[in-house]
Amino acid sequence: MLLKQIDSPTDLKKLSLPELPQLAEEIRHFLIQKLSSTGGHLAPNLGVVELTLALHYLFDSPRDKFIFDVGHQAYVHKMLTGRQNRFDTLRQKDGLCGFIKRNESEHDVWEAGHSSTSLSAAAGMAVARDLKGDSNRVIAVIGDGALTGGMALEALNHIGHEKRKLMVVLNDNEMSIAPNVGAIHNYLGKVRTEKIYRKAKDELDWLLRKVPAIGGKLARTADRVKDSLKYLVAPDGMLFEEFGLKYFGPVDGHDIGKLMEAFKQADQIDGPVLVHILTTKGKGYSPAEADSHKWHGVTGSYKIESGQVVKPVGPPMYTEVFGNTLIELAEQDRRIVAVTPAMPGGSGLLKFAEHFPDRMFDVGIAEQHAATFSAAAAMEGLKPVFAVYSTFLQRAYDQVVHDICRQNLNVVFAIDRAGFVGADGETHQGVYDIAFLRHIPNMVIMMPKDENELRNMMKTAIEYEKGPIAVRYPRIAGTGVPFDERMSAVEIGTWDIVREGDYAAVLAIGPMVQVAEEAAELLKREGINVRVVNARFVKPLDKQMLLSLAKERIPLMVLEEGAIEGGLGSAILEFYALQGVQPASVHLAGVPDIFVEHATIKEQREQVGLTAEEIAKRLASLTVRKRQKAT
Amino acid sequence: MLLKQIDSPTDLKKLSLPELPQLAEEIRHFLIQKLSSTGGHLAPNLGVVELTLALHYLFDSPRDKFIFDVGHQAYVHKMLTGRQNRFDTLRQKDGLCGFIKRNESEHDVWEAGHSSTSLSAAAGMAVARDLKGDSNRVIAVIGDGALTGGMALEALNHIGHEKRKLMVVLNDNEMSIAPNVGAIHNYLGKVRTEKIYRKAKDELDWLLRKVPAIGGKLARTADRVKDSLKYLVAPDGMLFEEFGLKYFGPVDGHDIGKLMEAFKQADQIDGPVLVHILTTKGKGYSPAEADSHKWHGVTGSYKIESGQVVKPVGPPMYTEVFGNTLIELAEQDRRIVAVTPAMPGGSGLLKFAEHFPDRMFDVGIAEQHAATFSAAAAMEGLKPVFAVYSTFLQRAYDQVVHDICRQNLNVVFAIDRAGFVGADGETHQGVYDIAFLRHIPNMVIMMPKDENELRNMMKTAIEYEKGPIAVRYPRIAGTGVPFDERMSAVEIGTWDIVREGDYAAVLAIGPMVQVAEEAAELLKREGINVRVVNARFVKPLDKQMLLSLAKERIPLMVLEEGAIEGGLGSAILEFYALQGVQPASVHLAGVPDIFVEHATIKEQREQVGLTAEEIAKRLASLTVRKRQKAT
Repeated sequence: MLLKQIDSPTDLKKLSLPELPQLAEEIRHFLIQKLSSTGGHLAPNLGVVELTLALHYLFDSPRDKFIFDVGHQAYVHKMLTGRQNRFDTLRQKDGLCGFIKRNESEHDVWEAGHSSTSLSAAAGMAVARDLKGDSNRVIAVIGDGALTGGMALEALNHIGHEKRKLMVVLNDNEMSIAPNVGAIHNYLGKVRTEKIYRKAKDELDWLLRKVPAIGGKLARTADRVKDSLKYLVAPDGMLFEEFGLKYFGPVDGHDIGKLMEAFKQADQIDGPVLVHILTTKGKGYSPAEADSHKWHGVTGSYKIESGQVVKPVGPPMYTEVFGNTLIELAEQDRRIVAVTPAMPGGSGLLKFAEHFPDRMFDVGIAEQHAATFSAAAAMEGLKPVFAVYSTFLQRAYDQVVHDICRQNLNVVFAIDRAGFVGADGETHQGVYDIAFLRHIPNMVIMMPKDENELRNMMKTAIEYEKGPIAVRYPRIAGTGVPFDERMSAVEIGTWDIVREGDYAAVLAIGPMVQVAEEAAELLKREGINVRVVNARFVKPLDKQMLLSLAKERIPLMVLEEGAIEGGLGSAILEFYALQGVQPASVHLAGVPDIFVEHATIKEQREQVGLTAEEIAKRLASLTVRKRQKAT
Repeated sequence: MLLKQIDSPTDLKKLSLPELPQLAEEIRHFLIQKLSSTGGHLAPNLGVVELTLALHYLFDSPRDKFIFDVGHQAYVHKMLTGRQNRFDTLRQKDGLCGFIKRNESEHDVWEAGHSSTSLSAAAGMAVARDLKGDSNRVIAVIGDGALTGGMALEALNHIGHEKRKLMVVLNDNEMSIAPNVGAIHNYLGKVRTEKIYRKAKDELDWLLRKVPAIGGKLARTADRVKDSLKYLVAPDGMLFEEFGLKYFGPVDGHDIGKLMEAFKQADQIDGPVLVHILTTKGKGYSPAEADSHKWHGVTGSYKIESGQVVKPVGPPMYTEVFGNTLIELAEQDRRIVAVTPAMPGGSGLLKFAEHFPDRMFDVGIAEQHAATFSAAAAMEGLKPVFAVYSTFLQRAYDQVVHDICRQNLNVVFAIDRAGFVGADGETHQGVYDIAFLRHIPNMVIMMPKDENELRNMMKTAIEYEKGPIAVRYPRIAGTGVPFDERMSAVEIGTWDIVREGDYAAVLAIGPMVQVAEEAAELLKREGINVRVVNARFVKPLDKQMLLSLAKERIPLMVLEEGAIEGGLGSAILEFYALQGVQPASVHLAGVPDIFVEHATIKEQREQVGLTAEEIAKRLASLTVRKRQKAT
């Protein structure tokens, strides 16, 4: 076993070049084995084994800075930098993070989770290096999907301008998370497959060598032709050359020898270079090669032989209910179109795409464009449903303010993964969308307490014609409630009392309604009757109910799986302050002012006290005085 | 006067082609005259006179959709669509908006103010048209500067993929707002000036026609050569052709005949096309041609003959104090670098750029990249000062969360134009940054009450080594206070009592401190002594002071020129709720849940009740009970 000898890049460098393919084999075996019990981003990591080996073999981390875009493809990097023994804890509480994490290793120099940040990071590190007079390398590894993100293109533009030495490794697996879309993708496909260009180039080269034989006309303009030759000799990487980066490739990303050769050549250039690597997602594990989409990120365990992923049994995920319901609604309403920034699978839209291929718009990793594209479609009478993860909607904040809400357009936001997301951890938590959306004029924000209410809220959103409206839902399974026979719209700005009680009232949203009910059930045993309100509209609030709660002088607790600062509780406090009304008391339960790391959702809730037990305890202490008074 | 006959595009179409240059002349005269008293975006509009005439002459607005990127270059469009008689009210309260405004005219179909949204809008409108079975044209007019914005590139990628008919008019004035930067700019420069390419192309064409004479080798591969020819015949627009758009140009943007010809040709294409127009900003007014930067947007009046802009007298603008102070600090601290997304002038950094050309990074219109670039520079030990308008920082919200705050990096945010911005109106108001920043862990947010405190806060920010820190300041002149002899850091999380009083306490930030002091002065005449607190840290709050204010049982009013929802007042309410402490009462004064339109800053404050008189009135009513008790 070579792998066991490798505890650092220094150990790797001791191996001979011919040993590396065997090491690659062992790494793949290790990953397939380990992830079969922990889950994780298998396919992306199987794709970058040779690429990562070559970088660590040739260059000098951590002095040289390796920047992995997104970072979920850095498992091999983690294995080569002393973390093999922690893979049993991958993506678990206090275990190995599924992304780059600086507190794990000095070799982890740039954290991410959202895509397309690596080129900006490389630009910044290259500038810092030069201003400090250092000479380390800066190497960004970015996938073809991430390249469609606007900030990656902004960075390319700046990198081409600055002309500083840095290397971009374009890991082109033709896939990103979902099959890639867009003109850049088509362009890369052309580079990859149309050998025709290189053939023609060779022949034109030959032709040009014949020039003196045809006469002096062309010879007189030799300089001009030389300039034009740029277009003849480098058509492959033209797009990147236009941006000012020297292009190398395409290179077979599973041939370590060729990779090393390309990296060495590229390293000679004193300026920005791009090395275009072709890799296969899932390489070496046939189930993953066959369906790299399914194997992009495996959430549970799987059987290695069959490739069968162990599926949880139970009620459907909110995501799935969303997808199915959207089809039902779209059958009735021809205005509906679905918009996704490269997450058709994750957002539950694959079936929709089959049903309505003409009404499905996967715009690539491009949240800003997705939002404004939706705005314009709404302006012209369509009913765009912008399906997006809470954490990725952060990318479109300005477009939501400036294009959608300011113009008050009928865009429907389907905000998935609102609340804790579990194993993906702090870069993916959906805990800020209430805080960054609710201060925007014209916005309506709702969250269902179960999957049946999700359906009704979707109907509400589609029928709503007064501006933007958002329905947010969590990354969990529904509660298993039966569906209403017919969907019916929910009245905007109304809350629902789901349990009566007089000692205190919990105003909860989403899955926290269930937590509140469980807490109430615990307290009932002690003779305390707590009211539970499904505060399903974050904006507008149910003002009538809030006023009558204040009159009752009943203590209130606001319960939300989102940031306390700027959250629903904050909205309720503002309402009372603006009304000049003082309720008995308002207590806030939510996510405190920290980034919550990877763990299960259950553990994350425990960490911040969002469990039935903890809430029951807090409620009991609130109600002590009241009970004493009552008895 | 032809201009007087034009009240709609229909009137324009009645003119003969040879009359158009005269009309262009009259339009320029009109703009130079009118704007000399109102101010406004003179140079950009002088640049697009012929372009706008040609579009309205050839095409059929509002059936055809004209989408103006940013929209500050749409004055000519407004003149041709029935709004000539409103130019005396330009950018004034209830007057003509300086940007596209749908409630002004059916010809205004897409509002903007932030750059780079037009291509996404065009994509969305083209999709809607096709799904509805309509056949109208969709035409986006975008400047070369706006093209560096990531979302424009995201949109290009999607447009190239969708292949729907739409026209992009690239208005290339080599300038954007500031001299343009980046690889795309260099690329356009090459297209514009290096005739060499076209010359070489011609000669290679000639060469290829000779092919049969050289032998059969090339003839046998005729198809392949034809493919490669694409690179030979269209090197000009290669970048756009790579993105999947058919390229036309470059065309002289001041030659109406050539413009019409190009637009007609481009209109024949059943797919996305880009027409590259070369224009001169300020065309026809020599002072503006000579310094199009200065004349991009004129805030006051000017003398037509001399081109002398009437400058306000009085204390320096906060922006200017920022710029000068940064130079002082950078002389002491070599780690300091300045980062601006295409706003070196607007952000007061021109002098800095002269002093420290190697430490000045204008990254183009690219806020996302600017933020993450700053993050990486900070990671490597530099002290980046990201100077950005509050409204444009919205574009980088995700990067602030995910890259800067999550990694807790020492990035300094210099947030200019925080609060109302006056004549630019609702697209530019800086009223959300507190609401979208304060819920992010690790962030420190401060705002000075005057320009001297700005200097001290800048020193604070530079010396702070615990993570990101923001100082926000308004788009107004300072108060005229003298500067401290030496800058001194302000203790993080401390507020300052600037006026004593016992009836109530106003917790104010930024210029609202002065408003509070004036209100207190008014009330003093009635015998009411109001305390005024400079609540200079939005995060962290001065917890000690808040607790002692609660103990005092003194009514509190929070005064901020920012959104109430999620604002400073909201933060204070949360603090008390989390502490389980109830102050006597908390009253919120800020910007309500609406978009505030263009007017003077004074008028905008009046509109929402943020004047000394209004605050005094509210305070007086609060204190009635207390006074009654006291007497």
